[in-house]
Amino acid sequence: MDALKDLAEALGPRFTTSESARAQNARNEAHFPDAMPDAVVWPETTEDVALTVRTCAAAGIPITPLGVGSSLEGQHLAVKGGVSLDFSRMNKVRAVNAEDLNAVVQPGVTRTQLNDELRATGLFFPIDPGADASLGGMAATRASGTMAVRYGTMRENILALEAVMADGTVIRTGTQARKSSSGYDLTHLLIGSEGTLGIITELTVKLQGQPEATAAATCRFDSVEDAVNCVILTIQCGLPMARIELVDEMMVHGFNEMAEAGLPEKPHLFLEFQGTPTGVTEQAAMFREIAEDFGVQDWKEATATEDRTALWKLRHGAHYATAAIRPGPQFRTLATDVCVPISKLAEAVTTAQDMARKMGVICTIVGHVGDGNFHCGVRFDPDDPNEVQTTQDFAGKLAELALTLGGTVTGEHGIGLGKQKYMSAEHGPALAYMRAVKAAFDPQGILNPGKLLPPGN
Amino acid sequence: MDALKDLAEALGPRFTTSESARAQNARNEAHFPDAMPDAVVWPETTEDVALTVRTCAAAGIPITPLGVGSSLEGQHLAVKGGVSLDFSRMNKVRAVNAEDLNAVVQPGVTRTQLNDELRATGLFFPIDPGADASLGGMAATRASGTMAVRYGTMRENILALEAVMADGTVIRTGTQARKSSSGYDLTHLLIGSEGTLGIITELTVKLQGQPEATAAATCRFDSVEDAVNCVILTIQCGLPMARIELVDEMMVHGFNEMAEAGLPEKPHLFLEFQGTPTGVTEQAAMFREIAEDFGVQDWKEATATEDRTALWKLRHGAHYATAAIRPGPQFRTLATDVCVPISKLAEAVTTAQDMARKMGVICTIVGHVGDGNFHCGVRFDPDDPNEVQTTQDFAGKLAELALTLGGTVTGEHGIGLGKQKYMSAEHGPALAYMRAVKAAFDPQGILNPGKLLPPGN
Ligand SMILES: Cc1cc2nc3c(=O)[nH]c(=O)nc-3n(C[C@H](O)[C@H](O)[C@H](O)COP(=O)(O)OP(=O)(O)OC[C@H]3O[C@@H](n4cnc5c(N)ncnc54)[C@H](O)[C@@H]3O)c2cc1C
Ligand SMILES: Cc1cc2nc3c(=O)[nH]c(=O)nc-3n(C[C@H](O)[C@H](O)[C@H](O)COP(=O)(O)OP(=O)(O)OC[C@H]3O[C@@H](n4cnc5c(N)ncnc54)[C@H](O)[C@@H]3O)c2cc1C
Repeated sequence: MDALKDLAEALGPRFTTSESARAQNARNEAHFPDAMPDAVVWPETTEDVALTVRTCAAAGIPITPLGVGSSLEGQHLAVKGGVSLDFSRMNKVRAVNAEDLNAVVQPGVTRTQLNDELRATGLFFPIDPGADASLGGMAATRASGTMAVRYGTMRENILALEAVMADGTVIRTGTQARKSSSGYDLTHLLIGSEGTLGIITELTVKLQGQPEATAAATCRFDSVEDAVNCVILTIQCGLPMARIELVDEMMVHGFNEMAEAGLPEKPHLFLEFQGTPTGVTEQAAMFREIAEDFGVQDWKEATATEDRTALWKLRHGAHYATAAIRPGPQFRTLATDVCVPISKLAEAVTTAQDMARKMGVICTIVGHVGDGNFHCGVRFDPDDPNEVQTTQDFAGKLAELALTLGGTVTGEHGIGLGKQKYMSAEHGPALAYMRAVKAAFDPQGILNPGKLLPPGN
Repeated sequence: MDALKDLAEALGPRFTTSESARAQNARNEAHFPDAMPDAVVWPETTEDVALTVRTCAAAGIPITPLGVGSSLEGQHLAVKGGVSLDFSRMNKVRAVNAEDLNAVVQPGVTRTQLNDELRATGLFFPIDPGADASLGGMAATRASGTMAVRYGTMRENILALEAVMADGTVIRTGTQARKSSSGYDLTHLLIGSEGTLGIITELTVKLQGQPEATAAATCRFDSVEDAVNCVILTIQCGLPMARIELVDEMMVHGFNEMAEAGLPEKPHLFLEFQGTPTGVTEQAAMFREIAEDFGVQDWKEATATEDRTALWKLRHGAHYATAAIRPGPQFRTLATDVCVPISKLAEAVTTAQDMARKMGVICTIVGHVGDGNFHCGVRFDPDDPNEVQTTQDFAGKLAELALTLGGTVTGEHGIGLGKQKYMSAEHGPALAYMRAVKAAFDPQGILNPGKLLPPGN
């Protein structure tokens, strides 16, 4: 392709067609087959991105942005070939505006990198998917994590974006002000669009003040139902939980296998409280009072920073610990991601467990349950058609259940390749308006083709 | 017009071309000339709205939705004639899902109506523009109010919408779940779109638990600069203020004139703290410590419910109290609405005061300063071309200043008729993508034509 030659010339060492680089970006952490791009571009500036887009647009070559490639629905895979636009070198923190509680970052900055750079400021960025994802990728998937129950998701934590659109135009959306009623909300239109509407080249993200005091705790319950009912009441009472995470007995087993966590293999909640010292004590006491009604046991506090870090490191490793319940390189993990109204959470989780048992599905359950969001991590053999079918059936039934309960098929992982089949059921006639946006913004369909929108009209 | 005859027949008493009804909807609280619609429709159901839209679409007749008509940029005025779609009769609270902290309402429900209906539940809806606006209108203008500093704006408080699109299609956006990564964010695209992309027929809004304890207070400062610097530090320290409102000396004068408030005519902050009883005491003490550094005086607490109600009623009357600084039916009020990063707030407010003085502009200043948002309420004579020019110049300079400081020309009032002239300066090349959305969603341009997007391409 001539266009790739032009790119090679213009970008020099920021362009390659080498097999190893392409193979690197062809992989995913979930269960999708590898997908090789034709070339990899590592932009260092917005202009590099714009040039790449202009060149590809002229030749109709697909462009698939890539952060760290941790997305779980195959979002970053170049399934139609073309250019993998890899943001790993566009990873500078441009400004920390401590006095305005925001930071301006390039999209390749990862969440831990940003928090490392913020350490001296007393501020932090609260969105924490298990992986050390890039902020560009997190924005593009509308990611969240354990602290969304307190601070919201990427949807609530971005003030402004710079983006390169499908014809190479560079736009800015939003401002540094905390709110605005000026015009259509293009910022939110780009957040969650999985690189299909525009390519994010800069983000202004909100920062939070480090709380004066933090306390974490774990506790266990006899049943998942008890644990979830405790969560429901906690949220309904308006307790400002910083984190409230469910791990079921199988997930604990995975932690024990992977990390010798030494936890009793029963459902647990992992908790965090933040506030003033008095506030934290108050909150923990209120939580324990609620939890007593659900037979809470084994209350263990972790106040020392290193104990808390160890606790959340364990939790963030859930995806890998899931592998430990059925180890072996031949197996893959499909992570479901339903999110339901909090009042329906116990029904959803217990139905999921029952279904798994009945269908013979081997899975962990772990969830950001304060948001009504939980994942079944299903281990299956992709070469066994029966297992593949059962896994898909299980995921499909769970998706259906979530919609019946007034929820969504994906709380935070996004649509990508894996969940397009549910788009029509979730959105009905609204889907046509999503297609209209795509057609208006990317008429050639070169931005991450094959993702988010199901084929057809 | 035949189409209007068809509507008359189909809608019966829900349709009129009577002069008085049309004149009623032709007015505004700001400074725009009256604009008469050709007819008024009072839908009672989504189907009424869809039928109206289908009929108008077939005949190319404009439709301008109307809540209570309190918008301040002429948004609800039928400047191109056609149908004024008046939601005052579509005002039922459909469901209060206390266990999920949300409510499902029709668009004509007003904020005080909703809170009245919520009283027994221990929950409340926190967005409170000064006017008793409709939730449909508030969503459409991306409104906020005094509590946005704590709870966010309409942007953060809507889970799901039902809307009738320009061809009569009924869509649903969002779900009852607290978060979702499924598809493009049409909910946020409709929020703030001023009825130009779709007509909202139902909203699912988030509710908040009534705080255990609430305390309000007023205090005064020697200068606006001291007051604002106190606000800046308070926000930067992360104090979770429920309300923090600036009123300058002229605004206090207005309150004294209108409501015999008996306040010393000096800059004031009006404050509210919410939380547990200990939390509220802690917060108030922390605030006073900060305020001491800025020479705070006259600290007056209001803990009794009726005192707090009186305080916020006074504040919510600011628009009318502004009239009192230059009374007379011949004068109108232009309210500016810039919003800047918090670190730039003192510069913005003092520059505004200086400019007003130098230009001979008569105005109050009042603001949701915790968000960096403040209003100059300029009293002017619309029949005096000099005053009109000076008022426009003043507003224009302030808008320019806000953009220079990294802010927005409108924090909460929206664009409507009055701020289209700043759209290009604020959005640059992004404006073309707003136009693309409009063209894709409403190719005929029948939804609230003449609003939000400036003429041209
Ligand atoms: C162990 C593990 C735990 C996880 N836990 C969570 C969790 O708790 N919560 C959660 O939400 N997710 C979680 N995930 C999923 C994943 O981390 C998120 O989806 C994350 O947001 C992806 O970021 P990334 O940098 O890896 O993006 P990638 O996977 O590289 O890309 C994701 C999508 O974003 C697009 N994209 C990337 N950069 C840009 C850009 N600059 N402009 C436009 N589009 C762009 C890509 O094209 C793709 O569509 C987890 C994944 C793993 C492996
Ligand atoms: C005294 C006073 C104080 C105010 N204080 C504030 C404040 O503190 N904060 C603030 O944000 N605003 C404030 N405002 C402005 C005003 O209250 C808000 O803009 C409010 O959101 C308008 O609501 P409404 O019901 O009056 O809508 P309208 O004025 O009737 O309409 C506003 C816009 O919304 C559209 N619209 C209405 N209903 C629908 C629907 N169902 N579907 C689609 N579009 C619809 C209309 O077409 C129009 O474009 C104040 C106004 C006054 C008069």
